[in-house]
Amino acid sequence: MAVALAVAASLLPFFYHLLVLSASGWLYAGAAYIAYNTSGSLVPGKINVHLVPHSHDDVGWLKTIDQYYVGSNNSIQGACIQNVLDSVVEALLADKNRKFIYVEMAFFHRWWRQQSDTTKKAVRGLVSSGQLEFINGGWCMHDEAAVHYIDMIDQTTLGHQFLKQEFGQVPRIAWQIDPFGHSAVQAYLLGAEVGFDALYFSRIDYQDRQKRKDTKSLEVVWRGSKTLGSSVDIFTGIFPKDYEPPPGGFYFEVNDESPVIQDDPLLFDYNVQERVDDFVAAALSQANITRTNHIMFTMGTDFKYQYATSWFRQMDKFIHYVNKAARQLEFLKRGSYGHTTNSLAEALAIAQHHDAITGTEKQHVADDYAKRLAIGYTEAAKLVESTLTSLTESHSNSGHDGDDALAAKFEQCPLLNISYCPASESEIKDGRSLVVLVYNSLGWRREDIIRIPVISDAILVTDHEGKIIKSQLLPINNASLSLRKTYVQAYVGSSPSVTPKYWLAFPVTVESLGFSTYFIRSAETRGTHAFMSIVDSSQGMKNSTKEIEQGNLKLQFNHDGKLSFYFNKKSLVKTSIEQTYSYYVGNNGSDIDPQASGAYVFRPNGKFPIESDKVPLTIIEGPLLHEVHQQINSWIHQITRLYKTNEHVEVEFIIGPIPTNDGIGKEVVTQFTTTMDTRKTFYSDSNGRDFIKRIRDHRSDWNLQVNQPVAGNYYPINLGMFIEDDKTELSVLVDRAVGGTSLVDGQVELMLHRRLLHDDSRGVAENLDEKICIDTKCEGLIIQGKLYFRVDPLGEGAQWRRSTGQKIYSPLLIAFSEEHGGNWSNSHATTFSMMDHSYSLPDNVALITLQEVQDGNVLVRFAHMYEVGEGKNLSEMAYVDLKKMFPGKKILKIVEMNLSANQERQQMEKKKLKWQVESSPSAETVVRGGLVDPTELVIELGPMEIRTFVLNFNNTYSHLPHR
Amino acid sequence: MAVALAVAASLLPFFYHLLVLSASGWLYAGAAYIAYNTSGSLVPGKINVHLVPHSHDDVGWLKTIDQYYVGSNNSIQGACIQNVLDSVVEALLADKNRKFIYVEMAFFHRWWRQQSDTTKKAVRGLVSSGQLEFINGGWCMHDEAAVHYIDMIDQTTLGHQFLKQEFGQVPRIAWQIDPFGHSAVQAYLLGAEVGFDALYFSRIDYQDRQKRKDTKSLEVVWRGSKTLGSSVDIFTGIFPKDYEPPPGGFYFEVNDESPVIQDDPLLFDYNVQERVDDFVAAALSQANITRTNHIMFTMGTDFKYQYATSWFRQMDKFIHYVNKAARQLEFLKRGSYGHTTNSLAEALAIAQHHDAITGTEKQHVADDYAKRLAIGYTEAAKLVESTLTSLTESHSNSGHDGDDALAAKFEQCPLLNISYCPASESEIKDGRSLVVLVYNSLGWRREDIIRIPVISDAILVTDHEGKIIKSQLLPINNASLSLRKTYVQAYVGSSPSVTPKYWLAFPVTVESLGFSTYFIRSAETRGTHAFMSIVDSSQGMKNSTKEIEQGNLKLQFNHDGKLSFYFNKKSLVKTSIEQTYSYYVGNNGSDIDPQASGAYVFRPNGKFPIESDKVPLTIIEGPLLHEVHQQINSWIHQITRLYKTNEHVEVEFIIGPIPTNDGIGKEVVTQFTTTMDTRKTFYSDSNGRDFIKRIRDHRSDWNLQVNQPVAGNYYPINLGMFIEDDKTELSVLVDRAVGGTSLVDGQVELMLHRRLLHDDSRGVAENLDEKICIDTKCEGLIIQGKLYFRVDPLGEGAQWRRSTGQKIYSPLLIAFSEEHGGNWSNSHATTFSMMDHSYSLPDNVALITLQEVQDGNVLVRFAHMYEVGEGKNLSEMAYVDLKKMFPGKKILKIVEMNLSANQERQQMEKKKLKWQVESSPSAETVVRGGLVDPTELVIELGPMEIRTFVLNFNNTYSHLPHR
Repeated sequence: MAVALAVAASLLPFFYHLLVLSASGWLYAGAAYIAYNTSGSLVPGKINVHLVPHSHDDVGWLKTIDQYYVGSNNSIQGACIQNVLDSVVEALLADKNRKFIYVEMAFFHRWWRQQSDTTKKAVRGLVSSGQLEFINGGWCMHDEAAVHYIDMIDQTTLGHQFLKQEFGQVPRIAWQIDPFGHSAVQAYLLGAEVGFDALYFSRIDYQDRQKRKDTKSLEVVWRGSKTLGSSVDIFTGIFPKDYEPPPGGFYFEVNDESPVIQDDPLLFDYNVQERVDDFVAAALSQANITRTNHIMFTMGTDFKYQYATSWFRQMDKFIHYVNKAARQLEFLKRGSYGHTTNSLAEALAIAQHHDAITGTEKQHVADDYAKRLAIGYTEAAKLVESTLTSLTESHSNSGHDGDDALAAKFEQCPLLNISYCPASESEIKDGRSLVVLVYNSLGWRREDIIRIPVISDAILVTDHEGKIIKSQLLPINNASLSLRKTYVQAYVGSSPSVTPKYWLAFPVTVESLGFSTYFIRSAETRGTHAFMSIVDSSQGMKNSTKEIEQGNLKLQFNHDGKLSFYFNKKSLVKTSIEQTYSYYVGNNGSDIDPQASGAYVFRPNGKFPIESDKVPLTIIEGPLLHEVHQQINSWIHQITRLYKTNEHVEVEFIIGPIPTNDGIGKEVVTQFTTTMDTRKTFYSDSNGRDFIKRIRDHRSDWNLQVNQPVAGNYYPINLGMFIEDDKTELSVLVDRAVGGTSLVDGQVELMLHRRLLHDDSRGVAENLDEKICIDTKCEGLIIQGKLYFRVDPLGEGAQWRRSTGQKIYSPLLIAFSEEHGGNWSNSHATTFSMMDHSYSLPDNVALITLQEVQDGNVLVRFAHMYEVGEGKNLSEMAYVDLKKMFPGKKILKIVEMNLSANQERQQMEKKKLKWQVESSPSAETVVRGGLVDPTELVIELGPMEIRTFVLNFNNTYSHLPHR
Repeated sequence: MAVALAVAASLLPFFYHLLVLSASGWLYAGAAYIAYNTSGSLVPGKINVHLVPHSHDDVGWLKTIDQYYVGSNNSIQGACIQNVLDSVVEALLADKNRKFIYVEMAFFHRWWRQQSDTTKKAVRGLVSSGQLEFINGGWCMHDEAAVHYIDMIDQTTLGHQFLKQEFGQVPRIAWQIDPFGHSAVQAYLLGAEVGFDALYFSRIDYQDRQKRKDTKSLEVVWRGSKTLGSSVDIFTGIFPKDYEPPPGGFYFEVNDESPVIQDDPLLFDYNVQERVDDFVAAALSQANITRTNHIMFTMGTDFKYQYATSWFRQMDKFIHYVNKAARQLEFLKRGSYGHTTNSLAEALAIAQHHDAITGTEKQHVADDYAKRLAIGYTEAAKLVESTLTSLTESHSNSGHDGDDALAAKFEQCPLLNISYCPASESEIKDGRSLVVLVYNSLGWRREDIIRIPVISDAILVTDHEGKIIKSQLLPINNASLSLRKTYVQAYVGSSPSVTPKYWLAFPVTVESLGFSTYFIRSAETRGTHAFMSIVDSSQGMKNSTKEIEQGNLKLQFNHDGKLSFYFNKKSLVKTSIEQTYSYYVGNNGSDIDPQASGAYVFRPNGKFPIESDKVPLTIIEGPLLHEVHQQINSWIHQITRLYKTNEHVEVEFIIGPIPTNDGIGKEVVTQFTTTMDTRKTFYSDSNGRDFIKRIRDHRSDWNLQVNQPVAGNYYPINLGMFIEDDKTELSVLVDRAVGGTSLVDGQVELMLHRRLLHDDSRGVAENLDEKICIDTKCEGLIIQGKLYFRVDPLGEGAQWRRSTGQKIYSPLLIAFSEEHGGNWSNSHATTFSMMDHSYSLPDNVALITLQEVQDGNVLVRFAHMYEVGEGKNLSEMAYVDLKKMFPGKKILKIVEMNLSANQERQQMEKKKLKWQVESSPSAETVVRGGLVDPTELVIELGPMEIRTFVLNFNNTYSHLPHR
């Protein structure tokens, strides 16, 4: 192109010399500094556009949290939160009219601790002036489908306490813009009860969104609890499309392609008017679907503001020029560390993230979460072990905390669920005992049967008084041993040196918030003290049914091995019930329906039963429990258990590797099928808290057009689900978050395992095809888990669901030590309860938090576990006697706090917004506990109430070790 | 993946409650702020790595300069210089140990004028502390092949004056890291004579680079002028590879994929040692090819530092940890606006950029340069016209500057070269005259023949005294009229309303720095006063030659129409000479050689003569000049001209559209072929200044392996080239930058036009296939240009080359006005010279700059135009008498400056570095002018010397209009 320029140049150069001859001084362009006027105030009668600059920073998704933070692994995704926070702070400091919201404390905390005191001071200024506002403020933006409400509270509290401590700030907005669906518990508990003024989110059923746009009801007051009624109303704003900037080219990340505002008349391509027009058009479009003149523009998206100035520069101009034009804009105006990371608390917090627990992260990120949980577990285990050491010593050796000679060393078995426990699998030498300490973190006295793997059948179990406890030995089946071998090698790095022969099961009793100690010793004879289970087989049985009976329950299996009948001798409930397995074919995304089934989207394309002509039963019977072992097919094993002391059935399943050599991805479900007339209705929990009524192919808010008859009826299950007819109710509880539905009247279906061969094109760009590898040899993942089911007379299932659900969430903790000289009981505490021995929390109250927050200050949370009308006598006001709960301790002060404990409840109530709602509520009778009398110290809890208190003790509480 | 997490989670959650029970306060991670120690000092005996953070910001390449500046059009390339400068300043302010160099004032100036006073103050602080250092400091990083040295000086001065004025700063380093080759003029003139301490560049012949790496001679002292010798030595550093960071992953732009240093032990993937190892390895690798312990790492590349902190954060860590390690690092530590843009000065300045004038920019960017030049031209033209108005008025009407009634209005004809000039093409009515003002910007009295298009043949020309001037009318040929029609419509937007019939040619005489006025009136008779040329044709001539003779020259064309013989009656030089056209086939990049011929790379694949059996001649003869019109083929036309008053031959060519419907790209050359015995040797100019000896297939610095026998012998031609044998020399001058060579003894070859169909994969990603479009109809570009050639006795060609070259660079300026009442001479000045009428500059001195810089201060530059031994009496000391040059003006003070006029020459000399060089120079006799006696005011200039002065006048200099 040199030629073209030369043609032009040949016309011109000679003028230069004349030009400069006549120039008066050097002619550079005139000063063009523009002081943008970005101050703003609301203007009645005009459309007020609130620009909300934000960066949506997933706490792990395509990269791990730390990779996102430091900006490594950018080949996967260009993202560096350090850039975001560094540059946002600089941009805010540069102009006091600029504002920014920040959400994820997992990132902010990482950044904060790396800052100098100077920077911290400047940032505190930005926070106190409102330029930098923390929104949501949890450690992550938790999921709302697959998380338990206690974990939601904990992770929110972790972030809120950090903000309170460092900034004295209380977040005012729930900002759940990316989770893939929304729960009632989020609205009323994590929203209203936290004290938030509003809840904003983006993802909603497309039919629901369209109706809301049509009826201008994207902004609503959400009443999330039928029990707590209007007292937990919360204003809720749903975004019209997503959490991105409005359509029309308003992305301003470095190298983004949206047209920038070129407002320098001395440069080419001046375009202020065009861009102002674009902006006003976007505002008018959105104004058309809201009822007020106020519009929010979410100015940002995933991992943006890596160089914040590039955004603010454009927003400054929009504000300046649009306000000069015709419209009004306004920024949304609202608005003592230890020496180590609380790794487990953080790991659990970030695992609640909406791309973590949901499985929508990349595999290496899932591995990172697992690694963090493992590290956190290890650290926590050490703390647990040293705490147990201290607790067991303190009674007999107070004042000798440091005496190592007498200090018991405890260890735990994290892989006990797959029958791996080195502590219990070693030979117990003569004169020694395996010490088993069982800790109960609940506020109720607890009886249960625990099990540990052992190598000898000549053993006996005694309690702390030396009394022999009836125990039972159960053979470990081959499926379990095979799983144990593979996964121990994968997780621990080496094969176990021995293989246990039996599960040793025995009953334990543990007081509230306390422990009990049991001893296992060699016995001279086999089978005398530890009962050897009787093994029977259905092999050879022909066309006959088999009945299994233990405690109050009796189960019947028919000739082909299927469960067929359930009977409770005590309640006299009896019902035919069948349990079966099926799989859905995951849609492969080609052909007619381009949406593949994958990490985000369940998209079945046909359902097939998993059936054998006959599934043989192996029946193991003994005094404490019976087991029925079944191999459903070559890759599904199941053990059905009946306990003497329980009135539910426990089903342990081992599933995998799901075969895919036929090129078909499969999603495995189990169904419990009864003849109950359930009329399309079933109930599933909301974050393990409320039970929500679901009607098949129906939504109460809009006329559902059923396009996905299976997936459209699936709901997240964290605690369990139940169905009922006019006589009975069938409840199923789960030990993990799964999906569940009732596609056929009388049936409960749960999704247990998925293995898919296509990416579902929602961003993760990997197939949901999880593998486990030993060296370079990989195979599809095998999972092991438990279901619990029970049939009750109508109206009587709630108590079991609530209290057993709490126990599943908080199982007994088992720790092991070794007794050398037979004098453990002389030198150690063998039983303990923090509470008065005569006291237990009421059946309808759970202690969900007990936590020392500062010297002498303890945070406690109690949850009433029943909704109005849910449990006969249990849905009444409950009372907790703090004096009995903390015997011998003087509570100097008690303050009720909001849910996340970052403000006093009374303050929260005072500033609560009162909303006029369209359909005025019918007369409500909301029962809530009253103020606590500091002399009585009895806490009242109304149905479904969760109350949070900070208690101030004197500083002599000896059971709380100080670090 | 929810399942995998659930498996893990099922092991863990219960610990949480125990954990927090025993936690003493909230356990967030401990403070991890690291104050990086990045202060540095040189350490003898160790490898000192100098990190040079830089952003190479092309002043137009894939995007236009303003698109690069504001960051628009990012879909082509993500780049925003506003980001770079904003964020660099913030990053530097954040840490006083950080440093940055900035190069391109075209961008910096755009940014600077948009800044607030506060920012400006902060930036001045950064500059004065040395954190922000300006390097090179020209408006752009000019090309070194296709640019004229005066344009290099001008664009450098523009930037240097800006820096001097705003910051009081004098750049110390020439930083030509990206231009595609390097010229001697850059080294000695734009390097040493500017006062730079060093010159750094990157691009060099790969064979040369390898030899220098092998011999550790990448760092040299470059003596660029044989005339000025060691007085213009400059230290020169050549980068071992390019201007990128060293190999090993050291790119830290936002979203770059190089591993960042993760030095936070509380996060995963800690990698300090690995990264320090990488860094040290890179340093050792480079240390191995340099002689000293000092190494430069260029930390940056094209358009980087959009978020500067992302780079500095990593460099801070490298400095901190590597210095803790074992090596020392150090940043390279060195070192009144008017109301309008000087658009033309800037447009010309940025057009010198190494992707502009070279043609390696995208087409839309070339269009942008052309638009800038056109705008600049228009602005400059207005200034010229008003200046002429003022100059012509001032003599007779002093004190009445504002009197519009008497003020003459001037206009110019920018498309005069393609015979379009509305001012001269209109009918001249009776009693009126077309006033033609001719301005001479050179310091010599000048005689020439000018030409303007006219529609009438009944006209006459008079001088300012009314004396009739002999003029000549020449018919305009069809090729020219066709070109005129198309390109006027394309450039002006509409077809010309009339078509001129003739060129009117007449001789003019203009004094130094002055003007003369001529008048054109209607004449009653045709052909009497304006001689109508005689048109002859070779059509019908058979096998005979044709001789054309005018003035002292005679040319002979043989029977097939080819030029065959040249004879000068005065010098008696005679030589056979043939002029022919050929084209190279542009390599298409497929097949054997994947390198296509394109914008960057000339890669011929075969050469083919463009021949007709017979090229008919049309011969136009008259008293002032003769023309020979030839149609070489359907798309090449040529006019050969002989002037009565000149002793050279002028060749005007019209070439294009080059046909490509055969799918073959073509590069068109013309050859002048003689029988001279030139022994592989030819001479080409260096930026229009020095003539450099070239030997075919040879490099004086290394043993050339000839891989590209054509392209490897091509050199840039800005002024011209010549060949010589023991009797004569053939010189060819050009009116634009072209490529040239001598591939055969006795031959000069010049590349005139290129049209190629493949991208050459060097970044521009477009084919060099320029088009001109009218509405949507496009065709390949047609070019029109001129060559000038002459044959002299050996040793006598220099004077013609030098003085004619200067005239080609600064042609006469022609402006038009209209006389109404026949009394122009009474009311206007008709002749003018700024200098004493008896005075002219010596033949060997050119005035290359005359420029008012501040009230009463005028910048002048004089150039001695001959090298030692080049011109017989012309290579002597020359003298300029300032008193005669500025008659009637008192020069109160005279200060000699360095070349770019940003410091006094004496200061520059004082701080000049003295280098000990390996091969000590033989005894030199460098002749330079001495100090100027302020009473005598005579400036001495030694051969090739360029001297720059600031003269201070009293403030009454009336000829300089003040704006």
